[in-house]
Amino acid sequence: MCGIVGYIGPRDAFPVLIKGLKQLEYRGYDSAGVALLNGSLETFRKKGKVADLEAFVEGKSPAGKVGIGHTRWATHGEPNDVNAHPHTSMNGIFSLVHNGIIENYAKLKSDLSEQGYVFKSETDTEVLANLIEYFYRQDEEMTSEDAVQLALSKVVGAYGIAVLCANEKEKIVVARKGSPLAIGLGVNEYFIASDALPIAEYTQQVIYLNDEDIAVLQRAGCTLKNVRNNPVSLTISNLDLEIGALDKGGFEHFMLKEIYEQPLTLEETFRGRLRNDHSEIVLGGLLDVFPKLEQAGRIIIIGCGTSWHAALIGEYLIEEYAQTPVEVEYASEFRYRNPVIGEKDVVILISQSGETADTLAALRLAKEKGATVLGICNVAGSSLARETDAGVYTHAGVEVGVASTKAFTAQVAVLTMIALQLAKRKETIDAETYRMLVKELSETPAKGRLILESNKKIAAIAEKYKEAVNALYLGRGYLFPVALEGALKLKEISYVHAEGYAAGEMKHGPIALIDDNLPVIVVAPQDAYYEKVVSNIQEVKARKGNVIAVVTEGDTGLHEMVNDVIEIPRSHLAVAPLLAVIPLQLLAYHIAVLKGCDVDRPRNLAKSVTVE
Amino acid sequence: MCGIVGYIGPRDAFPVLIKGLKQLEYRGYDSAGVALLNGSLETFRKKGKVADLEAFVEGKSPAGKVGIGHTRWATHGEPNDVNAHPHTSMNGIFSLVHNGIIENYAKLKSDLSEQGYVFKSETDTEVLANLIEYFYRQDEEMTSEDAVQLALSKVVGAYGIAVLCANEKEKIVVARKGSPLAIGLGVNEYFIASDALPIAEYTQQVIYLNDEDIAVLQRAGCTLKNVRNNPVSLTISNLDLEIGALDKGGFEHFMLKEIYEQPLTLEETFRGRLRNDHSEIVLGGLLDVFPKLEQAGRIIIIGCGTSWHAALIGEYLIEEYAQTPVEVEYASEFRYRNPVIGEKDVVILISQSGETADTLAALRLAKEKGATVLGICNVAGSSLARETDAGVYTHAGVEVGVASTKAFTAQVAVLTMIALQLAKRKETIDAETYRMLVKELSETPAKGRLILESNKKIAAIAEKYKEAVNALYLGRGYLFPVALEGALKLKEISYVHAEGYAAGEMKHGPIALIDDNLPVIVVAPQDAYYEKVVSNIQEVKARKGNVIAVVTEGDTGLHEMVNDVIEIPRSHLAVAPLLAVIPLQLLAYHIAVLKGCDVDRPRNLAKSVTVE
Repeated sequence: MCGIVGYIGPRDAFPVLIKGLKQLEYRGYDSAGVALLNGSLETFRKKGKVADLEAFVEGKSPAGKVGIGHTRWATHGEPNDVNAHPHTSMNGIFSLVHNGIIENYAKLKSDLSEQGYVFKSETDTEVLANLIEYFYRQDEEMTSEDAVQLALSKVVGAYGIAVLCANEKEKIVVARKGSPLAIGLGVNEYFIASDALPIAEYTQQVIYLNDEDIAVLQRAGCTLKNVRNNPVSLTISNLDLEIGALDKGGFEHFMLKEIYEQPLTLEETFRGRLRNDHSEIVLGGLLDVFPKLEQAGRIIIIGCGTSWHAALIGEYLIEEYAQTPVEVEYASEFRYRNPVIGEKDVVILISQSGETADTLAALRLAKEKGATVLGICNVAGSSLARETDAGVYTHAGVEVGVASTKAFTAQVAVLTMIALQLAKRKETIDAETYRMLVKELSETPAKGRLILESNKKIAAIAEKYKEAVNALYLGRGYLFPVALEGALKLKEISYVHAEGYAAGEMKHGPIALIDDNLPVIVVAPQDAYYEKVVSNIQEVKARKGNVIAVVTEGDTGLHEMVNDVIEIPRSHLAVAPLLAVIPLQLLAYHIAVLKGCDVDRPRNLAKSVTVE
Repeated sequence: MCGIVGYIGPRDAFPVLIKGLKQLEYRGYDSAGVALLNGSLETFRKKGKVADLEAFVEGKSPAGKVGIGHTRWATHGEPNDVNAHPHTSMNGIFSLVHNGIIENYAKLKSDLSEQGYVFKSETDTEVLANLIEYFYRQDEEMTSEDAVQLALSKVVGAYGIAVLCANEKEKIVVARKGSPLAIGLGVNEYFIASDALPIAEYTQQVIYLNDEDIAVLQRAGCTLKNVRNNPVSLTISNLDLEIGALDKGGFEHFMLKEIYEQPLTLEETFRGRLRNDHSEIVLGGLLDVFPKLEQAGRIIIIGCGTSWHAALIGEYLIEEYAQTPVEVEYASEFRYRNPVIGEKDVVILISQSGETADTLAALRLAKEKGATVLGICNVAGSSLARETDAGVYTHAGVEVGVASTKAFTAQVAVLTMIALQLAKRKETIDAETYRMLVKELSETPAKGRLILESNKKIAAIAEKYKEAVNALYLGRGYLFPVALEGALKLKEISYVHAEGYAAGEMKHGPIALIDDNLPVIVVAPQDAYYEKVVSNIQEVKARKGNVIAVVTEGDTGLHEMVNDVIEIPRSHLAVAPLLAVIPLQLLAYHIAVLKGCDVDRPRNLAKSVTVE
């Protein structure tokens, strides 16, 4: 992951860089650093968050109109000052910030060692800095961009980099492969950042680098070439971001704010798409590709983490209503095997940021194999949005909390709309059921608001279980992926080892974990599998486990059987995931807060996962 | 789960019942009990294992030539004396042992309460005993079998039952639906058991009851009818079991013995199937259905627990080599939704015992939808073997350890053979690759033996991590399901919360768990994803996690990077799961032994999962 920023222009660079890094902290916060060109190269680095760097620099008056910065999510070498970016080459000529992983760094490092290079850090990035310097020193005529180009041609792996050269006072060289990089175009100034967020304040015009592009930024202008030293043409995009969204709005944490925003998010996701009379779902972005979806022999849905859970719900919905076989894959697995995909298949890729490295690689593989590729993502103008044939935006608004909440519900809402509309077009659903389900969908925002009223009650339940070190989450059918998602939330932000299971699988292993210390959260709204889930609850209770059940309002049958109950409004099973996930998010949130965890910036994680 | 036994004949029933229960303890060991008919009904019940019951009965001289017995895996009500089977009806007329779950027990219980019935236990079984008694007392002419038939006609759920009636001195009534039940035919005697194991000592002739069959056993003979009171014809099967297999053969535990048997198991599984010159794989059981497999639009593989992990490996192999799309499903999920399956689809079901309730239900659903259904199972004559269109036996021999080991490797070996042979027939593999892979397969037994030589080293590693309360297992591609399986072994027998992940998913959540207490087991033999896995190891080390790596022999590059290394012989990636799983089984075994866990009978679990 990691976040990169850079600035060249008439302003003082340091405040611009620090502000940008803070906006990129969702990408990692193991350490932070900046380098400035002001006659010479000056570097400031510190373990910890950007605020720690700021405190460290205080009083040192960092000066310069050209600079680069970095906030780190550690891959090679533990988080400390020495491993923090920017990394300086051995002879102090180059300073580099890097997002990604150089896979052949061990080989390059040993080659450079033979050339007399010594290394201060354990990072792959320092190897790259020295490799650039090595080429630069081979030839007096060499420019920094040539040295970067030569070095990158030797590199296997992923990178987004920004490079300063002590001998070239007014220049930044940037390049990308795999990791995202945006360049903002001001008047006689350029802004560099891993995403457009830090740029939006200054300009609406951005260039998104493509893979293997190298850009040279000088106040006078910008030129592009690629790693093979060929010229590249340049496309300028227009930003349209709501910066105002980045405010906690009175909530203690972004995550809580975003949980509360979900009813609104659903309304935004449905706006203009659900007809008021429930007669039709209009998905403008898919109009042209619906015939392909209808004829698809198979639909493959690909995601990572939370998006993978949304994909599983999509599978159940599409198979149930549209009767098209669906396969769900982890992006990281799909891309490294030889998947059976052809021109008749449709691949749907899901990513909140639209920049998840594995998902983009999967997208490119699917495209190569001739499949129709569709995207579901939240960030307009992201790589996913740009590279797919068509797609649907989730309109969840900016999500800041590292643990995804409203983006998940928006993804599930979009998948539900796709499933129903596909079913309608394939005539695998009758008109009455279709209308009923569209109505059910349209009622989820109001029902979501009712669930949020249980917040205090859920906080009280969290108080009872805050000392737990393990937890099991169980659900069946549509609620099985919700159990997985609930477990992931708790795991991400409270470091409790929570695991989700299909309830029917409990007896094949996880039941061995159950004792009177283990909370078992069962998602059990009244539905077709209700009796089976009740049997599972009996099995847990027979082993003295503590059961927290999410049940349908008014289902008093379970109250006596379990330790704690959270009620959700009655709804059709097909839309229940949109509701049942909310109490699980709140439970995870309150347990994490009670444990004193940094909810919005959990340890080791980063929001947008742009390494492989 | 639960195990049921019964006896009627010239012998003293008690020793026969106790011996049988001990052989069925793999099905549960929460409590045990017997009831004997000797003039009147006499019942002995005790919480704990069969040995505890034996100690409890000592000196009480239980007499009778007719009796039933039970070893329990708790579903409704905690394991104690009162909830132990057999359950006696309120007026002492009936005694009942039961395996399964009566889903509508709450309704039946309240109806019976209105009729004046009171209940001593929390079980669904006592409800059934009283329901039988209720019908029996409605009419003086009523026989016990009629009462059983009337009661079962009201029941929703699964059952294998054996019933004694105090008024009918020489009769046992048995019935089944969902739960397995076998009747052994001796000379003027009958043996009843949940599987054939306890019967094999006395007779080779058995009747496997079909769903909804009711049998009346008297010394004079046996009659069958069904729940709708219609007559049923009777099929006698011939047993062919090696009872000698049930001996630990000098090993401390069955599980360790079975881990060590794996090279032999693989040889047995390959025997007569792999041609010596590697030119062909002969799967006799599938010869007739291969054309269907070749034409299949999609193959769906279904299993639970360990079998589900084998299925995932099968998916990767079949998609890679035979280029047929494969979908893997949990049996418990598949059966409760509306899966898209048609006559062109082939469904492969995997179950060691061939009696897993959810898997059998999935089988019946797939059959109903017109698919070709194939079985992979270990127990000859099991329901799965009888109800599928065709299949392949794993020939792993009797597996006693509750945590499956050799059955898993045998399942994977069978799936590998299916994938390669299908590829050959579809001509999606070239002759050279095919021959090379068959050769690689044939070499796995010898390589497996080499791995077992690391047992002491693995025990030493286990010593270092025996205090861990959590663990992560990571792998990519073919080794991802192996990571899942390794985690499941540790979870099942040591109660350590171990979780497996696709290595690429780590950064989407589980990485939050990593600190210096968490062992991370990485399955990283040298292969196409090696560099990616190395990056994942770096990410773990950067957060101070302890890494135990399973690597290819001679791969010294990783030694410095990780805490502990287990080497396995070099092999082709496609057969690596058969080898890489062995050290993970040994690691789990040693950690469990060091923690003082009952390895062969882990808490809460049962081997054959015949409840839903």
